[in-house]
Formats: sequence, structure tokens, C-alpha cells
Amino acid sequence: MVLIAPSILAADFSKLGSDVKEVENGGADWLHVDVMDGHFVPNISFGAPIMRSIAPLTKLPLDVHLMIENPENYIPEFAKAGASFITVHAEACTHLHRVVHLIKEHGVKAGVALNPGTPVSAIREVLEDLDLVLIMTVNPGFGGQAFIERTLNKIRETRSLANSLGMSGLHIEVDGGIAADTAGKVAAAGADVLVAGSAVYGASDRSEAIQNIRESAERGI
Amino acid sequence: MVLIAPSILAADFSKLGSDVKEVENGGADWLHVDVMDGHFVPNISFGAPIMRSIAPLTKLPLDVHLMIENPENYIPEFAKAGASFITVHAEACTHLHRVVHLIKEHGVKAGVALNPGTPVSAIREVLEDLDLVLIMTVNPGFGGQAFIERTLNKIRETRSLANSLGMSGLHIEVDGGIAADTAGKVAAAGADVLVAGSAVYGASDRSEAIQNIRESAERGI
Amino acid sequence: MVLIAPSILAADFSKLGSDVKEVENGGADWLHVDVMDGHFVPNISFGAPIMRSIAPLTKLPLDVHLMIENPENYIPEFAKAGASFITVHAEACTHLHRVVHLIKEHGVKAGVALNPGTPVSAIREVLEDLDLVLIMTVNPGFGGQAFIERTLNKIRETRSLANSLGMSGLHIEVDGGIAADTAGKVAAAGADVLVAGSAVYGASDRSEAIQNIRESAERGI
Amino acid sequence: MVLIAPSILAADFSKLGSDVKEVENGGADWLHVDVMDGHFVPNISFGAPIMRSIAPLTKLPLDVHLMIENPENYIPEFAKAGASFITVHAEACTHLHRVVHLIKEHGVKAGVALNPGTPVSAIREVLEDLDLVLIMTVNPGFGGQAFIERTLNKIRETRSLANSLGMSGLHIEVDGGIAADTAGKVAAAGADVLVAGSAVYGASDRSEAIQNIRESAERGI
Amino acid sequence: MVLIAPSILAADFSKLGSDVKEVENGGADWLHVDVMDGHFVPNISFGAPIMRSIAPLTKLPLDVHLMIENPENYIPEFAKAGASFITVHAEACTHLHRVVHLIKEHGVKAGVALNPGTPVSAIREVLEDLDLVLIMTVNPGFGGQAFIERTLNKIRETRSLANSLGMSGLHIEVDGGIAADTAGKVAAAGADVLVAGSAVYGASDRSEAIQNIRESAERGI
Amino acid sequence: MVLIAPSILAADFSKLGSDVKEVENGGADWLHVDVMDGHFVPNISFGAPIMRSIAPLTKLPLDVHLMIENPENYIPEFAKAGASFITVHAEACTHLHRVVHLIKEHGVKAGVALNPGTPVSAIREVLEDLDLVLIMTVNPGFGGQAFIERTLNKIRETRSLANSLGMSGLHIEVDGGIAADTAGKVAAAGADVLVAGSAVYGASDRSEAIQNIRESAERGI
Repeated sequence: MVLIAPSILAADFSKLGSDVKEVENGGADWLHVDVMDGHFVPNISFGAPIMRSIAPLTKLPLDVHLMIENPENYIPEFAKAGASFITVHAEACTHLHRVVHLIKEHGVKAGVALNPGTPVSAIREVLEDLDLVLIMTVNPGFGGQAFIERTLNKIRETRSLANSLGMSGLHIEVDGGIAADTAGKVAAAGADVLVAGSAVYGASDRSEAIQNIRESAERGI
Repeated sequence: MVLIAPSILAADFSKLGSDVKEVENGGADWLHVDVMDGHFVPNISFGAPIMRSIAPLTKLPLDVHLMIENPENYIPEFAKAGASFITVHAEACTHLHRVVHLIKEHGVKAGVALNPGTPVSAIREVLEDLDLVLIMTVNPGFGGQAFIERTLNKIRETRSLANSLGMSGLHIEVDGGIAADTAGKVAAAGADVLVAGSAVYGASDRSEAIQNIRESAERGI
Repeated sequence: MVLIAPSILAADFSKLGSDVKEVENGGADWLHVDVMDGHFVPNISFGAPIMRSIAPLTKLPLDVHLMIENPENYIPEFAKAGASFITVHAEACTHLHRVVHLIKEHGVKAGVALNPGTPVSAIREVLEDLDLVLIMTVNPGFGGQAFIERTLNKIRETRSLANSLGMSGLHIEVDGGIAADTAGKVAAAGADVLVAGSAVYGASDRSEAIQNIRESAERGI
Repeated sequence: MVLIAPSILAADFSKLGSDVKEVENGGADWLHVDVMDGHFVPNISFGAPIMRSIAPLTKLPLDVHLMIENPENYIPEFAKAGASFITVHAEACTHLHRVVHLIKEHGVKAGVALNPGTPVSAIREVLEDLDLVLIMTVNPGFGGQAFIERTLNKIRETRSLANSLGMSGLHIEVDGGIAADTAGKVAAAGADVLVAGSAVYGASDRSEAIQNIRESAERGI
Repeated sequence: MVLIAPSILAADFSKLGSDVKEVENGGADWLHVDVMDGHFVPNISFGAPIMRSIAPLTKLPLDVHLMIENPENYIPEFAKAGASFITVHAEACTHLHRVVHLIKEHGVKAGVALNPGTPVSAIREVLEDLDLVLIMTVNPGFGGQAFIERTLNKIRETRSLANSLGMSGLHIEVDGGIAADTAGKVAAAGADVLVAGSAVYGASDRSEAIQNIRESAERGI
Repeated sequence: MVLIAPSILAADFSKLGSDVKEVENGGADWLHVDVMDGHFVPNISFGAPIMRSIAPLTKLPLDVHLMIENPENYIPEFAKAGASFITVHAEACTHLHRVVHLIKEHGVKAGVALNPGTPVSAIREVLEDLDLVLIMTVNPGFGGQAFIERTLNKIRETRSLANSLGMSGLHIEVDGGIAADTAGKVAAAGADVLVAGSAVYGASDRSEAIQNIRESAERGI
């Protein structure tokens, strides 16, 4: 089964509540929450105040992606704000094992994200503790990028490794350049959670857009 | 004349557009835009994406307060997003003169903010190039703080210095703990732009709240 | 009255408890606890574990001097370990007012230290909130330095400023190169707490050494 | 043969000399010296001054574990203070090969430590130059953690790699959560140097505690 | 075919133009341009101003090696100054894939360098996008080092991986300790671009020195 | 008397030796050596290797201006390379007094530079230890800037302070936008060492250019 997680970064922040409700009603499975600090990545998106505004309005799981340095400092706040998943970047964590367990101690499911240039070996020692691996299919925090085909290998490598460890429930999420034309490929490679930004919020009919991505993904499997 | 600048950080981010329109209709003079990066201050608020959502909806001047490290990297983006004022922190700028002029080269009015512990001498060499000085009346980026009485001296010192330089048009803005009970004091000390957060957005009648702060300030003068 | 605060950094760490007891019995007024992190200064001395070992053994006030970056992260721990005073460096604090009040919120008396090259203006905005100003009379964290005569001016300037504000109870502490030959000068200039390291712990009779420094200081007044 | 290295971080710092002598007399093989700077890890333990106090008192090899950033700056000082081994963290070294050889140029045996989340591949290019690999079995610098079972794999992987390279003399050290109940497992996996903290210093009979850990380890082999 | 790239860092900076012409006339294939910032490595060599002085004087490809932090900030400037190749360090790039493509977007061939302690796995995810891999055969930025024999394995591993991917055109460059005595070994291992510093510029006959290195390398193949 | 110090940053680095000789023969008094690390300022110029190339060729005093972070790490190297003066930035030194004395311990005259936005109070505590104060008349490390008129006040303030302290021998140097049209003003304000870049090296007759600046300055006095 494939899950579609629209990224609120592509929504209209002047009416975020209604945009969020619209994708919820339109069939979204999760909401992807893109937090950027202008240091780990060269843009500042938003932090916990925005998340606290929308958490009470939706029943969808909030899937928080921390593109920030020192994520350990912000985990308690996002956990309290209602995160279902918190994902940190392997490249941002000197003490990755500690950060993963800090997320779990707060009762939140834990993910680790990998930049396009980072190998899967970076998470090998914590993989068995994870609920989710986020394979970036573009470089996080930079605009106007196309889907990087090379990352399909990484998705396959991660799924294969998870299968060999009996981790059938591991979510493999992809983020960047996901639309109807790429959804099939990533799903075929092993991804089961697809983040979509402008492909959903930029569409005239967002429900249809979600449905198209989902169908494309399912045909890929 | 006293100007009231509600801070959008205290608004409801699920319906920011309507909250902004409400204070505009309710008599606000400027909109204060609080950008935090989680490094200069220990919280991440939001960045340019939120500002771009509201800029087209309002005719109020957008008064951007960058509580971030390396603000020079973000000035072009906020200028393009429609800032009327951009204020940087003296404590965040090794090359303060350069940053002030970078703001002005983008056609935006320039401000410098001072933390409660920073003396006015920190801006002496750039004061004559400024359109605005922001005297923080609480510590930026930390929650639950009361108005710091000691900062009244700093407001007076800045206004006195501006007057001695013939800078009658210099805006002196205050931010933190401003409500009807403190507005008079800061206005009496020389502030002419009052940022108000929860005192406006937390009120049942926001128009009335703005009016009360304004009247309190004007009585103080 | 002059207070003598032997620095435990000059003690023998293989028998710190007995060294501490010896100076307590020998007439010391406070114990000075020199914490260095190898980043703010180029040496690592010790942190809270050492302090926790000696706190139960002495009735002397523990006067903690944090020569570290981000001191706010360590204030709760040192407060809990029994600090009577916590002093942070002005050069290490972007949000100096906030840090001073964080110390006080933990029920500890607050001090700010100034490097030899830092002017008194750096603490002007927080001075009235302080219990102690520490004027470094050598550069902190570097070995083998002589007392810097120029700092006598800074002691005088600080005492004069404190007197003009009616702060008769403000402690002015000096640290670096203090011995019988310099004690009179610093006391005459206005210092009332004298940190002494090797002048006490390097003496064959530590009680006598403390007494000599005290008498020299009192003659200076 | 298994070596037991009590960590002095668990000793009583008010009588460190006698605590050190006690474990030396009680059968300890090495003394483990845990240096933390509050930057690489979120605690400051102690630096070279403490080590210089104990070095003259013991004949045991001093096994220095630098949990610090920029360890290259401190290697000469610890070498001079009498270190037999200096171990740096792979995660702290951009120029890991250079740092390893700097240790050796000072006539000290060289080790590299791996955080629980760091794979063995991080040391592959320097392994043949090492005298010791330290597999952290808890996250360094954080309190109250249990032994991480997953690290047994990493011990086995490292020992297997060392054997394949003919490095029978390579020490594999473990640090964190080591006591009589875990000693057998780590020894069975290939560790030959066991750091023990509270399991030794927290015991009423420290000699017996060392003996128990040793026997447990040897049964594991 | 083996290419010889004399490093201008070994030239005489009082007459760089003529030194550069001399090696060009003496048979050099590329010019290696060693940029150091004093942060990624502990020396400052030079930046774009020096490169701009020599670019108009030579027809040789300029092979820029950025031993600097945040190389993305300097890529446009070196591209504009006439670089044929820009090589960044894997250890300096959080967003390595992004940096590689930034180089290519500027119309310059892209390389990634590996410190002696860094494994080949660090570039696995970007290898297929590269024109060049630079295997450091000494630690960059430190003086007086000998060729590290262990790096021959890494050259072989990289060449083997490139061959398995059908990347017959990938340049494998080596830098550090290259002279007539080591050239054969690195070429035999798979390197095809040899940086030579003092072995060329320190020779009385630079043309002969280049020729000797080239012949030694070709005998190695 | 006014001294003219051409900046080698404006020379032609392909023939630096002859460019340096030309200004020496043309009447230059000192050579100004602009070291930039790409961190304190956003450009990398050059480091000690370039200085070592020219030092043997000239009898002029080498006046080294370190626009770098952590200048203490590079002082020994520049002293050894033949610096007569080493100037560090107040904004770059947490331990400014220590750095000034480190320069002097190496037998070199010590200067401190102030960015245009930095007040004179930043050097008040070390002024009496200085041989030179460098008042930046543009922002260091940024191109294409005009002379900042406001800095004339700072030159006057510094000269006045020096006179009040009896420091008649203190050099006050200016750097940025100095040419025949500005030389008179800065000299009148109290500067006695004028750095000139393109105004000298960009002139067709460099000797004449130096002479023009000198005459303009002397007319100003």
C-alpha cells in the first residue's frame, strides 16, 4: 500500500488550515511538515508555531522532517505539538543513535533522512531502531530541482536491506520531484510513502492529483 | 504620532490571511514579521515562505525583524518578498555597516535591533544611516518574559542621541511585553513604533486592543 | 572587607577534598571554581563532576567562573551542584541579560566577567541586575601570565559606576596574578573579592598565605 | 586475556589519588581517562590538570579517551602528561589519518572511538595504523544509558576485520554499561579491554568488582 | 596516458607568471591550483585573485582544488576565473550532490577529493556524476609529509569501481609526495593525473623533472 | 609625516616581485599585505606563502593585515616570514589583549583594525599597548565600495584619544577608497599611514600616483 503525504510547504500559508483540510478530505494519508533552519539548508521555512496551528485541525498523522542542525534541541517541542513521526538528517547528527532514541522516548516514531549524496551505510547501525527512512530524491532546501534518477538505486538498496532484516514494516519515504510521472518508479523501487508538494498543491483539483499519484505508484508496484 | 505594529507571530497560522486583514482593518499601522532561525535565538518561527503568502493581501508596510545569524544571506529574499523595513541584530553582524547598506541597496528601509543587554554604543557608528532602531524590551526568542523596565533608559538614550543629530525622523521601535499598561511608558521615553503580539491577537476585540494601546501610548507622550 | 577566594584549579586534584578543607580551615572566604571548556579558552579544566565531589565537604560559598561558550546550557547543573555564585563571560553571551536572569531564576547570585581587552561598557545594561563583576587581571585560560596593571583602571571605573548607582553591595572580584604584592593595589582600586591560585596553593603554609594576601589588601584600602 | 580499565570519571574527585590507588591495588590493568569538552558531548568532565595530578601516583597505563572537538590541539598536552594511549573520535576528525599519526609522533599508542551510530567503515582507511579501536556501547557523554546490544555486531565485525588483516594485537575496547552481566557478551564478541565505571567505583569491594567483571569476561571467551 | 599537473603552490610567487610558463613549456599537461582557507586545513594558501592573474597567461587546463569549507560559495568565482576542473572535498560538503551539480551548472568539470582517512564509500552516490576523483596521498594542508602507501589500495578500489561502472574516462588524480619514485606505483594502481609540487618546482630542470615523473608513471602501467 | 602603503592585493600576481620593486622604487614607505580567509570576510586573498615570496625582495616594512578568524593561529608564521607590523581585527578576537601581546612577544609591532561599524570603545582597553590602529574606511573584503565619509569622525576620535594619552607615536592607518581626492581628508583627520590599492597599482605611473597621494595628504594636514 502506498501512502501520499502532501508537504505543507507548498500550501498557501495565508489559509493553511483550509489547505490542510482540503488535502485531508482529498485523500491524503499523512501531512509532511518541512522544517528548515537556514543553516542545515540554505532556506528558513517554519518551525513549531506553524505546526501548532494546524495540529488541532487534522486527524492525519503529522510527519515532521527536520532539515535543521542540532535537531535534538527541537524534538521535545515537535513531539508535544503532535508529531507522529520525526525524521532527522544523518548528516546533522554526531550522535545519531542518541537522537533516534530521544525521538522514541517522546513516544514518536523515528525516521532518518539521507541526502542524495549520502550512502545507506550512514544509517546501517541504527536501521533496526527506525520506523522510517527518508530517501531524499532532490537536495533538501534548494529550489527548482528535478527528481534524481540515481536515488532509485538507494531506495532499492534500503528496501532490500530491510527485507533481509525482516523489517517488513519499515516505511521508505521519498521527497522531491514526486508527481504522477515519477511515482511509479519510486514505488517499484520500494518506497511506500510519497511526499508531494507542488504536484498536489499546485493542481487545480488536489484530490484528483493525490489520486493520480497514488494510482501511478500502485501501477509501479 | 505612534504606530502600532502587530506581530504576526501571535496570529493563528491556520488562517493567517484573515488574521492579518483583521488587524489591518482594525487600525494597525505596520505588520511586524518575526523571523527566527533557531540559532541566533533558540526558536524557529518562520521565513520568507510565510511572508510571501501574506504580502499580496495587505497594504500595510511589512516590518521584517531578522532574529537570525548571517542575515546578509536572507536580505535579498525578504526585499523581493515586499519588505518595507528590514531590521537586523547588532549582535549578529560582524560587518554591521555593510549589512545596513545592503538593505538600503535593495530599496528597503534599514533598522538595527539591540538585545536588552547590548548598549547603544553598538550602533553609534551606523546610527546616521538608519531609518529605525529596534530596542528589544524582552529577550528575543524566549517565551514568557515580562517587559524589562531598564530598557526605558535605552529608549531615552537613543531618542536623545537622535535628537542631538537632528534625526527627527528616526523610528524607535519597541518589541516585547507591550500592552496598554506599558505603552505609555515606552512612548514617553521616545518610542514611536510599538510591536504588540498577544496583546492584540489574544484580545477578543483586536481593533479595540490596538486602539487601547495607541491611546495609552499617546497619553504617555 | 576583603574576601579571599582560593582557586581550586591550583590545588592538587589527587587530594582535592583535603586541599579544600585546608584552605577552609586556613581562613578562605569563598572557593573559586574555574570551569574551562577548551573552546572559550584554549584549555579544558573541569566541569560539574569535580564540583559535585567537593560541595558536600565545605561550608564555603562556591564561586563558579564559567570560562565556556553557551554557558546557559550548564547553569542548571552548577546551580544544582551547590553554586552560590555563577559568573559568565560577557564575551560568551549574545543574550547576556537572559543569561544573568537565568542564573537568578535558579536561586544563585549572578556575576559577569570581563576579559582584559573588554570595556566596562559591555556590562552597562545589566550591571544593576548583578551581584558580582569579575575583572580579569590576566587573560583567562592562558598560563604563565603576569598581572596586567592596566586593569586597575577598569576596577576603579567599575567601582565608581557602582557607587554612582548606589550599588554599595556589588562585589568586584579580580582573578589572575593576585598575591601579596598585587593585593593592595586591586583592593585600593575597589576590588573586594580576590581570587588567588598558586599564591595560596603553592605556599608551604596556606593559612599564612591567605592571611598575607588579606592583610596586604586591607592595607591597600 | 581481558584487561579491565576502570574509568576515573566514576571515582570520587575529592580523593582521586586514593581511589586510583585502590583500583590499582585491586587488580585494574589500565586507568581510563574520560575527557569531555561540553561540545562534542553535552557534558564537561575534566582535562589535563586532573590527569597530571594522578599520573605520578600510578604505574597503570593511562588510557585517555578524548570526547572533544579538535582533539589535535590537546594531544601534545596529554602525551606530555603521561598518556599510554590516546583515543580520538572518528566523528570529531576531518583529517583522521593526520590525527592518528600525530598521536604516534608523540610516542603514544593511537586509538579511534566509534559512536554507537557510526559504522566500522569510518575507520577502514586508518585501521592498520591503530593500536586500539574503542567501540562505544552507550552514547558518550549522556547519562543513565543502558548497554546497547546492537553494538555486539560491531565488535564482532571489527575483530573479524582485524583478524583478516593479521592484526592479532589490536585492542578492541568497549565503554558503557559494562558490568559482570555484560562482560561475557562483549568478550565473546571480541573485546579485550573493558572500561567499567560505576560497576567498579560504585561497588563496596572494588577489587572484587574488578575480579567479577574479569571472570565474567573470561567465561565469555 | 598519464597527465602531469604541477601545483602552483610550489612555484615562486614573486614570478608566478614565468614559473607557470616554464612548466607549460616544459611539458606540463594541467596546472594544479591549491586553494586553502585556514579552516578546512590549517594553512591559508591563496584564492581567486592569484588564479585570475595566471589564467590569461596559459593555455593549460586549470585544475582547482578547493581545500576550503563551504566551497559552494566560491564555485562561481573560480568558474568565472577560468577553471577547467573544480574539485571539492567530500569531508567539506553536507550536500555533496548539490555541490557537484553546481560545478557542472557553471560549465566546469567536477571532481571530489578524499582525505587519506576517508573511505571511497563517501563518494559512491555521486561517482557517476564526476569527471575526476582526487585521492589525497598525503593529508592536505599539512607540511612535510611522506607519501602514504596505504592510499594505493584506495586508488585501485576507485579505478576498479569506475571500470565496473563503465566509466573509462574518469580521471583519478593523486596529490602529495608524488615524484619519480612514487609515480610508477600510483599509475600502476590506476591514477592518471599526477600532481607534483616540489618535485617539479624544486628541480633545477623542471622540464626534465616533468619528463622523469611521466616516464616513471608510464613504466608503472 | 605621511606614509604611503600600497596594498599588494592590487598588484599583478603573475609578476608580484617586479610590481613590489616598482612601488618600492617609486617611493612607497610600507607594503600592505591583505590576508583574507573567506570566513571573517567573504573572499580568500592569500596567506603566508605569498608573503614569503616577496619578503626577501624588498627592504620596505611589511604591514600585515589579518582579515581572518582566529588570527592567533597565524601570528607566529607571519612573524617568521618577516612582518614588521601585524594587525588583527577587534571583531575577530575574544581575547584581544592576549592576541596583541602575542604579536609583541614575536618581536612584531601590533595593530588592531576596526570595521566601519565598530566603535573606538572596542579598543580602549588595549590602546596603550598598540603601535597602530587601522581604521577601515570601507568594509573589508567586499569589492567596489566607496570611501565612507563617516569614518573621518572615527579617525579624529582615535587621534584625539591618542593625544590625550601622550601617544604621539601611534600610527593611525586608513584602508579603503584612498586616492588623491580622499588623502587630504584622512590626513587632516589624523591618519598618518595611507593604504592605497588600485590608486597606485591601477595608475600608469605608479611613482607619480604615490607622489600625488602623498602631496594631497600633506596639503590636508
